[in-house]
Amino acid sequence: MAKKIVVIHGPNINLTGEREATYYGKESFASINAEIMEYAKNCGLDCEIYQSNVEGEIINKLQQVRHDCAGIVINAGAYTHYSYAIRDAIASICIPCVEVHMSNIHAREAFRHTSVIAAVCAGQISGFGKYSYFLAIQGLLPLI
Amino acid sequence: MAKKIVVIHGPNINLTGEREATYYGKESFASINAEIMEYAKNCGLDCEIYQSNVEGEIINKLQQVRHDCAGIVINAGAYTHYSYAIRDAIASICIPCVEVHMSNIHAREAFRHTSVIAAVCAGQISGFGKYSYFLAIQGLLPLI
Amino acid sequence: MAKKIVVIHGPNINLTGEREATYYGKESFASINAEIMEYAKNCGLDCEIYQSNVEGEIINKLQQVRHDCAGIVINAGAYTHYSYAIRDAIASICIPCVEVHMSNIHAREAFRHTSVIAAVCAGQISGFGKYSYFLAIQGLLPLI
Amino acid sequence: MAKKIVVIHGPNINLTGEREATYYGKESFASINAEIMEYAKNCGLDCEIYQSNVEGEIINKLQQVRHDCAGIVINAGAYTHYSYAIRDAIASICIPCVEVHMSNIHAREAFRHTSVIAAVCAGQISGFGKYSYFLAIQGLLPLI
Amino acid sequence: MAKKIVVIHGPNINLTGEREATYYGKESFASINAEIMEYAKNCGLDCEIYQSNVEGEIINKLQQVRHDCAGIVINAGAYTHYSYAIRDAIASICIPCVEVHMSNIHAREAFRHTSVIAAVCAGQISGFGKYSYFLAIQGLLPLI
Amino acid sequence: MAKKIVVIHGPNINLTGEREATYYGKESFASINAEIMEYAKNCGLDCEIYQSNVEGEIINKLQQVRHDCAGIVINAGAYTHYSYAIRDAIASICIPCVEVHMSNIHAREAFRHTSVIAAVCAGQISGFGKYSYFLAIQGLLPLI
Amino acid sequence: MAKKIVVIHGPNINLTGEREATYYGKESFASINAEIMEYAKNCGLDCEIYQSNVEGEIINKLQQVRHDCAGIVINAGAYTHYSYAIRDAIASICIPCVEVHMSNIHAREAFRHTSVIAAVCAGQISGFGKYSYFLAIQGLLPLI
Amino acid sequence: MAKKIVVIHGPNINLTGEREATYYGKESFASINAEIMEYAKNCGLDCEIYQSNVEGEIINKLQQVRHDCAGIVINAGAYTHYSYAIRDAIASICIPCVEVHMSNIHAREAFRHTSVIAAVCAGQISGFGKYSYFLAIQGLLPLI
Amino acid sequence: MAKKIVVIHGPNINLTGEREATYYGKESFASINAEIMEYAKNCGLDCEIYQSNVEGEIINKLQQVRHDCAGIVINAGAYTHYSYAIRDAIASICIPCVEVHMSNIHAREAFRHTSVIAAVCAGQISGFGKYSYFLAIQGLLPLI
Amino acid sequence: MAKKIVVIHGPNINLTGEREATYYGKESFASINAEIMEYAKNCGLDCEIYQSNVEGEIINKLQQVRHDCAGIVINAGAYTHYSYAIRDAIASICIPCVEVHMSNIHAREAFRHTSVIAAVCAGQISGFGKYSYFLAIQGLLPLI
Amino acid sequence: MAKKIVVIHGPNINLTGEREATYYGKESFASINAEIMEYAKNCGLDCEIYQSNVEGEIINKLQQVRHDCAGIVINAGAYTHYSYAIRDAIASICIPCVEVHMSNIHAREAFRHTSVIAAVCAGQISGFGKYSYFLAIQGLLPLI
Amino acid sequence: MAKKIVVIHGPNINLTGEREATYYGKESFASINAEIMEYAKNCGLDCEIYQSNVEGEIINKLQQVRHDCAGIVINAGAYTHYSYAIRDAIASICIPCVEVHMSNIHAREAFRHTSVIAAVCAGQISGFGKYSYFLAIQGLLPLI
Repeated sequence: MAKKIVVIHGPNINLTGEREATYYGKESFASINAEIMEYAKNCGLDCEIYQSNVEGEIINKLQQVRHDCAGIVINAGAYTHYSYAIRDAIASICIPCVEVHMSNIHAREAFRHTSVIAAVCAGQISGFGKYSYFLAIQGLLPLI
Repeated sequence: MAKKIVVIHGPNINLTGEREATYYGKESFASINAEIMEYAKNCGLDCEIYQSNVEGEIINKLQQVRHDCAGIVINAGAYTHYSYAIRDAIASICIPCVEVHMSNIHAREAFRHTSVIAAVCAGQISGFGKYSYFLAIQGLLPLI
Repeated sequence: MAKKIVVIHGPNINLTGEREATYYGKESFASINAEIMEYAKNCGLDCEIYQSNVEGEIINKLQQVRHDCAGIVINAGAYTHYSYAIRDAIASICIPCVEVHMSNIHAREAFRHTSVIAAVCAGQISGFGKYSYFLAIQGLLPLI
Repeated sequence: MAKKIVVIHGPNINLTGEREATYYGKESFASINAEIMEYAKNCGLDCEIYQSNVEGEIINKLQQVRHDCAGIVINAGAYTHYSYAIRDAIASICIPCVEVHMSNIHAREAFRHTSVIAAVCAGQISGFGKYSYFLAIQGLLPLI
Repeated sequence: MAKKIVVIHGPNINLTGEREATYYGKESFASINAEIMEYAKNCGLDCEIYQSNVEGEIINKLQQVRHDCAGIVINAGAYTHYSYAIRDAIASICIPCVEVHMSNIHAREAFRHTSVIAAVCAGQISGFGKYSYFLAIQGLLPLI
Repeated sequence: MAKKIVVIHGPNINLTGEREATYYGKESFASINAEIMEYAKNCGLDCEIYQSNVEGEIINKLQQVRHDCAGIVINAGAYTHYSYAIRDAIASICIPCVEVHMSNIHAREAFRHTSVIAAVCAGQISGFGKYSYFLAIQGLLPLI
Repeated sequence: MAKKIVVIHGPNINLTGEREATYYGKESFASINAEIMEYAKNCGLDCEIYQSNVEGEIINKLQQVRHDCAGIVINAGAYTHYSYAIRDAIASICIPCVEVHMSNIHAREAFRHTSVIAAVCAGQISGFGKYSYFLAIQGLLPLI
Repeated sequence: MAKKIVVIHGPNINLTGEREATYYGKESFASINAEIMEYAKNCGLDCEIYQSNVEGEIINKLQQVRHDCAGIVINAGAYTHYSYAIRDAIASICIPCVEVHMSNIHAREAFRHTSVIAAVCAGQISGFGKYSYFLAIQGLLPLI
Repeated sequence: MAKKIVVIHGPNINLTGEREATYYGKESFASINAEIMEYAKNCGLDCEIYQSNVEGEIINKLQQVRHDCAGIVINAGAYTHYSYAIRDAIASICIPCVEVHMSNIHAREAFRHTSVIAAVCAGQISGFGKYSYFLAIQGLLPLI
Repeated sequence: MAKKIVVIHGPNINLTGEREATYYGKESFASINAEIMEYAKNCGLDCEIYQSNVEGEIINKLQQVRHDCAGIVINAGAYTHYSYAIRDAIASICIPCVEVHMSNIHAREAFRHTSVIAAVCAGQISGFGKYSYFLAIQGLLPLI
Repeated sequence: MAKKIVVIHGPNINLTGEREATYYGKESFASINAEIMEYAKNCGLDCEIYQSNVEGEIINKLQQVRHDCAGIVINAGAYTHYSYAIRDAIASICIPCVEVHMSNIHAREAFRHTSVIAAVCAGQISGFGKYSYFLAIQGLLPLI
Repeated sequence: MAKKIVVIHGPNINLTGEREATYYGKESFASINAEIMEYAKNCGLDCEIYQSNVEGEIINKLQQVRHDCAGIVINAGAYTHYSYAIRDAIASICIPCVEVHMSNIHAREAFRHTSVIAAVCAGQISGFGKYSYFLAIQGLLPLI
């Protein structure tokens, strides 16, 4: 049976396509998600995609999937920079987690240079637009 | 048809009237909201009022109103000082947004001096109690 | 009639027992809650226990109980370190609140050394595992 | 008899209209002042307008008006960010003072995010161009 | 034979009762010590109480008791905030140590928010007046 | 012939007596000046008193007196905390200068703890109300 | 003709395989380079690999390849954290550059959390061991 | 009967006369103390002089004199800059305390610019050599 | 007709020649000004020289010359380090401005290392004594 | 015989003309060097020009010329901001050194505002493009 | 007659051998002292060894030996990091002083990286266990 | 066969003897090296001495000697304070390394107080001139 991964999108990621195109491109959220599903499938993986604007619901999701998924790809959006609660959730479950960002957070405003979840993630990918997700799935493969 | 604005109250604003009267006065939340509705109406505006203690729900609201409202008045409460997620939501939609505070946040504890959402708002009004909301509606008028 | 207290557990506390045992021990969340209920009862107190991963729901809870409980024990988890919104909620209601932590937060990563809610709590207990809750209930007694 | 207010413009405000139009607009200083006079009159107020580039003269003015005016609107320009002497002058007299800025100072360079006079002012209005002055006069009304 | 604990009071704790009553209450130092002795006895513990204003003498005491006591309760007073020498003493001996404060140090001046000894203590209790000592003795029980 | 000293009062000192009495007392500026004149006379000194709210005029004064006075007493008011220009003026002339403050600046807001002119003054006296000036004159005596 | 990319390894990367295996794994530098060559070839790219411990030689290399290569993958090693000179070199040439790190630099010592070259790179990949290079090559594809 | 004051000298002050003459002059400690005794007597005061290099003994002394002296002059030497324990001792007793320094601490190394005891002293005198003590006695007179 | 430049000297520059010779040399202010006039004339420029110790008068001057001069040389003295008001004045007018310092400000006290006006000047020249002015005039030539 | 000066260009300066034209202009490095040679010759000086991207080679050069040149003009490029090794080299040799920058480093990114070599240079010239070099040579003349 | 040196051990050094063996080894304090005595004797020196946990007693000792010893070796333990009083004592006497640490303080917790006494010591030796003392004695030889 | 050690001198150390004699003495580099060779020989060690001004060449040397030397003495000169690349090189090889400085870096400019290589060295010796090297060799002996 195929291993399952979960791709978690944080706040405002659902506006991708209509939101600040310089950073996030013009392709719609739905279309990118379809590509992610396809990409994962081609890698032989089962993939679930989840989005929420609510910090605590992201934590709920991380907790819920802890028994039946093999890896996580998370774009925590702005929560990346201050959500120690999401960090604790990732640390509490024992599943490899890859942090992704569509824009290169290290090349933007100072507050975006710090990821409080990085310390508990396996790796970080930043700056490749929708490709960040594909690379993250690739990066998960040897870990699961 | 009247243009619509949305007034968003963040966490604990709903306790106004019974909460720390020095800063927030004794008039009830319901009563202030009624006055806001009246004030907006007198300005020829349709007004919706929304309150939530949940950061992500405020983001949800900001996203939902993005197609049918002309301006936003937001008192993000304590989220003002750390919610980069709300900031991103405001930046993601293309509607003029005025930030209000009933107390003068620049005259209180140091952590309240910084607004992480100010950079993406048109203006900020702070320190006039319930009048802050009225002034914000006035301030929105030339922008919408 | 017995006075009522509310014990509020913040994010990820519900994973106690399966989460980082060095810090949080191996006893399950359910079992610890049962002991807390028993301990409160032995102190002649009515006790309600609440857990949420959502910052705003913790605020909702704090607001809801403000008219019918005599004291609060709160382990705000990672929100301890940045939730000025929970701080404002505690300050807005007029009920003595004791802050607890199972691990000794002052002996861990630097970001855990700061509690933004401490300034509005009566006292803080940190580092005694499940006993932190029992001590907090003891500590509440003279305040209610 | 009408109550009197004084509107104080600090350094470089007199160049409004020819100075950095992105921040300050193209309307001339004289024209804006005329509108302020008119606006105050419509509010039933006597209004005096004063401008100086000299920090100490602004202090002199604040001291001089302390016996015959009911409220002050001050745009301290760049002195906002470091003039503890103007702050002390405002604190020394007992007249409600509203701080205004035409541009949104919280959305510009870091040094403009801090107002050293805010702690002794009743409120702050920032980002509405010439309307900032009108809103400030509105905001003064309930205070005088 | 009963296990022995040592309660160490740091500088100025001996003035409790006549010193800043808001923080420390009005009960005398002698009276509180008598209650501590009683409390420990009721817990089946032998208890020695020691007070010194001299940092080095507190270190001497910590060293002296290292072979014949099972646990330590220490209120290091102001030394809490800078005495790395007391910290090293606690780390050098192998006895569980609980840090107590009568006032809630996290709710007072900024310099009191940092405990340099916390990192080598089992737990910290802060803000319960004389009860802080009782809770600390309770907290020591499972550790000795 | 008697040696001459100059006492320089900076911004807002002229409001002493009507300004924040907790810090500055209720005696009028004129009355205090009369006492300073008397005190200096009793010390066998000629005394000139000067006040200005304008930073640059204080510099002008410091430069003007550099050839005919033996010592300076300066209460630079809020300029104490940021006027490197006054500091340079004091350093440029070769006359012993004593810095005075009526309130204890080291016991007030953080920004008042730093004196940028202290490094070029002989000594500093802070916290004795009008007596600060008398002590400063005493302190100047062995230096001139 | 195949497009050419250059993979640049900075200081100490040549010791991979015998150096701190926890972070960098046990596979030899030569072997990893062979895999990188293979991977690039499979992507239809010409690939040159370069390693130097000398900051200035890395700059020389970046300058030399600026006319005949389409993309750069750079692991600047410890220079990542302070070499503004390498940053300027990358900014001076007009070739997309992807920054890679074998270990997750955001999860290690504080000094490794800052990349001074990130601001001029297209994206960053961190934490996937040798796979970081493969992902970087994947990430370069849509950019060249 | 004459009121009594106590002059407390902190660490290394006893070496005055042989220690860094630039800062402390060449007159011996004994000789200065004799002058202080004389000066106090001339002011109609009883004077006790105490010196210790031990932080805790200075606290002991402050506590001991709290019932029979009217004012304190303290030169806490280097303890000025970090002894929160001495600060607490001064705050614990209810006797006006004047802080003195022979050298101008605000004109020396950065660590000497901060006095942690200033916040609980009536005033501070710094930079007048032995005269600092005389001025402090003068400054105490109106307070006792 | 010759183009006109204005050389503006800030606070205390008028004491050059008698002030701290190590930094500023022994040549008198008048003499240096004469040389500057001569130098400008040799460059084919009309030159006006202005000095003031008053921050606001420097702003007044900058505003007054904005319609009839082609370039400005400014030595803002100590105002360089904190006068955001002068910075705004320079930014408000559209004339190339060169910042000069006789001493090398980057080699002196830390507070002199920062120029708040540099960001709005064309260039900065520091450390060449009176020659700094000549070089500035040279530097202005290609800009006007 | 003509005195000799050495002009040292640091990293990436050799790309001038093709590199970020906004800051560095479009004239080629070779052409600017030819102009520098010409300018020096017109000043009666022998001039050697040296460029390296390698920090240590710049140090080597500084050491090699220490016996036969009278002055140095150095544009250390990005090394300006962190090369304490180049600073030590300049301090180790006894030749006047002028620091130059083509762009105004004080008006760019924060990291460029600090020059670690300024403290050991005679003066600094910043912001005049190629003219910075000519002005530096002018500035050197009175020093050699 | 042999020159005399004094070796001063600060707080907790007397527990060496039973205290954190990773940093301090397992050899007893008495045994190390015997070796130090022997080592000094072999160097032709008289040696006195002193230990105290009390900061002020270490100062007393430094003062007492100032007339009859030629050099000092001091391991101030944790006082190294904050005792400006010990620093002043060392600066007050005129005897060369070498600072030693058994563990490498620069490789441990951040607070141990700073020595406030280093600025007044001849040199520092850190990290060689008991050998640090021997090296310090060697290092003192050319200084006495 | 004798064990081999390598002594590495960083930038500008080769100018010892002619460079800032206050810090580094007047003895030539060659002469000190001869003494180091002699000293090592007397300790029964083979010694190689290496100097480079190039950071990367120092790394090259550290890598080259990793298979045939037993210990390293390194004076990294100014690279001590920022070369994380040299730090990584030392950490990458498994040979005990002693850090030396001829001057007492902890008693000089603030930037010299931090050693970024200390964390990976066995010990540090600072302040004994050429003797620092001899002591380092002594200190290495028990480690190899």
